[in-house]
Amino acid sequence: MTQSVAPLVSPSALEIVPLGGLGEFGMNMMAMSWGDTTVLIDAGVMFPEPDQLGVDLIIPDMSFVEARRDQVKALILTHGHEDHIGAVPHVFELFDGPVYATAMTLALVEPKLEEHGIDPGDRLKTIKPRQRVTVGPFAIEFIRVTHSMPDCVALAISTPVGTIVHTGDFKIDQTPIDGQHFDLHRFAELGTEGVLALFADSTNVDRPGFTGPEIDVIDAFEELFTSTSGKLVVATFSSSIYRMQILVDLAAQFERKVAFVGRSVVQNTEIAQRLGYLRIPSGLQIRDSDIHHYASQDVLCITTGSQGEPQAALPRIAIDDHRCVKLGQDDTVVFSARSIPGNEKAIARTMSHIARRGADVVTPDMKHVHVSGHGSAEELKLVLSLVRPRYFIPIHGEYRQLAQHARVAAKVMRGADRHVQVLLAQDGDVIQFDANGARIADKAPTGRVLIDTTRVGEVGDEVLRDRRHLAADGLVVAVVAISRHTGTMTGTPELVARGFVVDEGEEESLFADASRVIGDCIASAGVEERTDQGLMTEKLRVELRRFFKKRSGRRPLVLPVLMEI
Amino acid sequence: MTQSVAPLVSPSALEIVPLGGLGEFGMNMMAMSWGDTTVLIDAGVMFPEPDQLGVDLIIPDMSFVEARRDQVKALILTHGHEDHIGAVPHVFELFDGPVYATAMTLALVEPKLEEHGIDPGDRLKTIKPRQRVTVGPFAIEFIRVTHSMPDCVALAISTPVGTIVHTGDFKIDQTPIDGQHFDLHRFAELGTEGVLALFADSTNVDRPGFTGPEIDVIDAFEELFTSTSGKLVVATFSSSIYRMQILVDLAAQFERKVAFVGRSVVQNTEIAQRLGYLRIPSGLQIRDSDIHHYASQDVLCITTGSQGEPQAALPRIAIDDHRCVKLGQDDTVVFSARSIPGNEKAIARTMSHIARRGADVVTPDMKHVHVSGHGSAEELKLVLSLVRPRYFIPIHGEYRQLAQHARVAAKVMRGADRHVQVLLAQDGDVIQFDANGARIADKAPTGRVLIDTTRVGEVGDEVLRDRRHLAADGLVVAVVAISRHTGTMTGTPELVARGFVVDEGEEESLFADASRVIGDCIASAGVEERTDQGLMTEKLRVELRRFFKKRSGRRPLVLPVLMEI
Repeated sequence: MTQSVAPLVSPSALEIVPLGGLGEFGMNMMAMSWGDTTVLIDAGVMFPEPDQLGVDLIIPDMSFVEARRDQVKALILTHGHEDHIGAVPHVFELFDGPVYATAMTLALVEPKLEEHGIDPGDRLKTIKPRQRVTVGPFAIEFIRVTHSMPDCVALAISTPVGTIVHTGDFKIDQTPIDGQHFDLHRFAELGTEGVLALFADSTNVDRPGFTGPEIDVIDAFEELFTSTSGKLVVATFSSSIYRMQILVDLAAQFERKVAFVGRSVVQNTEIAQRLGYLRIPSGLQIRDSDIHHYASQDVLCITTGSQGEPQAALPRIAIDDHRCVKLGQDDTVVFSARSIPGNEKAIARTMSHIARRGADVVTPDMKHVHVSGHGSAEELKLVLSLVRPRYFIPIHGEYRQLAQHARVAAKVMRGADRHVQVLLAQDGDVIQFDANGARIADKAPTGRVLIDTTRVGEVGDEVLRDRRHLAADGLVVAVVAISRHTGTMTGTPELVARGFVVDEGEEESLFADASRVIGDCIASAGVEERTDQGLMTEKLRVELRRFFKKRSGRRPLVLPVLMEI
Repeated sequence: MTQSVAPLVSPSALEIVPLGGLGEFGMNMMAMSWGDTTVLIDAGVMFPEPDQLGVDLIIPDMSFVEARRDQVKALILTHGHEDHIGAVPHVFELFDGPVYATAMTLALVEPKLEEHGIDPGDRLKTIKPRQRVTVGPFAIEFIRVTHSMPDCVALAISTPVGTIVHTGDFKIDQTPIDGQHFDLHRFAELGTEGVLALFADSTNVDRPGFTGPEIDVIDAFEELFTSTSGKLVVATFSSSIYRMQILVDLAAQFERKVAFVGRSVVQNTEIAQRLGYLRIPSGLQIRDSDIHHYASQDVLCITTGSQGEPQAALPRIAIDDHRCVKLGQDDTVVFSARSIPGNEKAIARTMSHIARRGADVVTPDMKHVHVSGHGSAEELKLVLSLVRPRYFIPIHGEYRQLAQHARVAAKVMRGADRHVQVLLAQDGDVIQFDANGARIADKAPTGRVLIDTTRVGEVGDEVLRDRRHLAADGLVVAVVAISRHTGTMTGTPELVARGFVVDEGEEESLFADASRVIGDCIASAGVEERTDQGLMTEKLRVELRRFFKKRSGRRPLVLPVLMEI
């Protein structure tokens, strides 16, 4: 951003600036300032759209934080999902203060910092629900909420102009797996005491009714444990610890061994076990490399890859390219997760590969094997009714969800004891609260930073790529025609480069070698992988980047364009 | 295809070859042969995935048809959806015989032929349900089924080795809008008489239960007609004539005028009215250009664009760029259609644009404003139970749907009076039926042809583009960096070309001019259009193709890559 960022103006006003997550799904982040104290709430990532070729992750532009690095006194995290903690390594060294979060959330942050070579020292501070910390003029209280993972909190922040409530992500699960209930009473007390403003999650505002508890999936899984005569393979999000507890308990009951398959699910379940959030009876868990020692009807695999991500475990298993897990006729594969918009095609391809293995596929459309972690309309209304804020700001959602949440709030807040004003804010809006009320007063610089991770084995090999400086490393487009049926390459690849300087005369040999890399990469892939556009595009991208890095020392943006013919 | 296609071998066998739609959604087409007679069933298109840049439509490879053009004696169409009739113009001139279909289906085919400059002469033959036509050794009977549009049929084809039943697309709507019921009795009779093989639609095999009738949406719409104080805008598929009849009837009841907005919905409703499938009380319908003469609470707009297609009416309305329809605070926009996988992001963007106009958005997740046209598991089982075939071949679906349908069939066909063998075929499989039974005997050449329609006003300006010959017209990639917030272009576009020959020294000026075209195109767009990647990519593609066509007489494949920063 070229814009200069002056510290905001009003010394006797509270200023809240959403830096991400308002008008888009993901990369949730917010800054709250009074005088010379700024507190950050969450620091999340978002995942790119399929047409954002060459991008692995997206984080909020941090220039706002950089400009006031001396004022930033703390970072508060509501829970451990990627869209709330994924950008912590990118903000951690921009300020000096503590990071407050629950034990589970911090345990998920630690390996991220480690991957980036960051030593957190004593800056990670574990808090518990109902606990309070003071940061300058702010007294921040943590309130337990229920969601799809353990140890999630909302925030009640006492400020010089009144109390701000931030829900984090939540649903109201009245029968939580771990017995840790949504703290309805504290929300009610806050409503009685008086709340200046409520910032509330809008993700599921479109869904009528109540989302329903996590335990709602038990019936369907009981049926699957009973009816599956081979292996049971369940793909879910690696943070869905409650889902895993349900599966582990059923595995114990139905006498199946449990294997966690996929890097992130192994890592997260280790953390959850260490903290006591996941309890696995001794002798039940086996390593994926030991699966072949057991009869398939004695095995439950819990895997990553529910979104059809090319590098994750399930899509590899689906094309029969996994070291330890092979699928057969009697096996059942369950997709115990929603489809994140944009991933539908990759998921459908993964399912068809599984069907080709002869295994049965079960989706949330067929059986109730997934329940959302976000509250539906009635739950959102309930929080509004309890908190009865003066001002309401919908957060976490595309503009339409925010607008819909505003409509819902306007309906709920009719009546003698209620009076709400909705501020429909978007990223960068400076929301100012003072003695005269609240308003959107200014616009702060915000934006997205695209991150390009070359996974070639090196730790921390990550490029913060500003697309404005694309020419610096250049761009290589590789157009490859492959036959849809056989997956073989037709003709030679078309390679085009721009801003990618090599020695005169060397380009030809470089491109000839790159063509060979493409040819080898396609030839070495199995026929199913070759005919799966998503998988092959990703594979070619990785191989070509490794090649160009090695040969030229540069990291051009590589865009493989696969044309099925 | 370079492969030579010999006429198939066995003179005393029935050979059925799916040419599209088995292992993929869309482009349904099948060839049925006995001796020197081949009959084609359906000729559909499929729509490209978002990452198939530069492709507008996909049709089945016709080399199988071309190789036996003298044998092809007729084309039978089951109903008028694009995935069943969209490729008719591409097959019509490859053979000489009649096209048999119902009146509605043929009425939708006619304008397609006209667009391609094809005079059908007397080859279009209107048939009615329960009617029978003879083509060589085949007696083809048409059986009424219910679906999301009028005049749909299944087929019962009597052949020398037994009867083949092909369901077309169907659900079992027991309260059809037009009183034309699913012909359960005929299916039952066929089951009694004995059926050799059933080919049945697998689209919704994942959904448990019964899909439910079209009239199920009436309650939700009644509520919306009551509660909407401004314009009511409903986006649906342009072929969903039943949905439109429901809306028209409600408009009459609630005293709103009806305007059809969007080329295809205007065309299709004219056809449906002419044939008596859509009845509009006189004085109710108005033109979109007259909408502004009426108070908004007196207007219902029925539009195209439910999939967020950049050129369709609703996405233009959403960014306030439509000639006749403006959205305001009190208006409600209803998405009365499912999201076709791959379109989710474009749909979400369209919804957020609508919310920015202040209008309310209603989706099928929020209210029951859409019901599928395809039968769910219980309906599929019912057809299997009625028909009791010797062989069952699931059709219309990705491999997983076909495999799931096979499992369902195996379950249903247990019992004394039943005995079924499932053939899990995919595109190109030659399914052979003779005195000894049935088997997949061979593989015929199939594939996809990508069609690139340059909509620059010329009639028939369409390119059948074989990607193997990409170099012939060349490729231009334009990488454009734009700011997500303001939509302005940052820096100059990166243009790279390959196989696109211009005179020495002219390339620089050509690219400078192309850069200018890009700059002008972005500058002339509204800020919402500029910040909508899908809309801008499409707009740039159209403009650049027009530019290169004009300047060079070539039609390079143009891939605009938009990078939001």
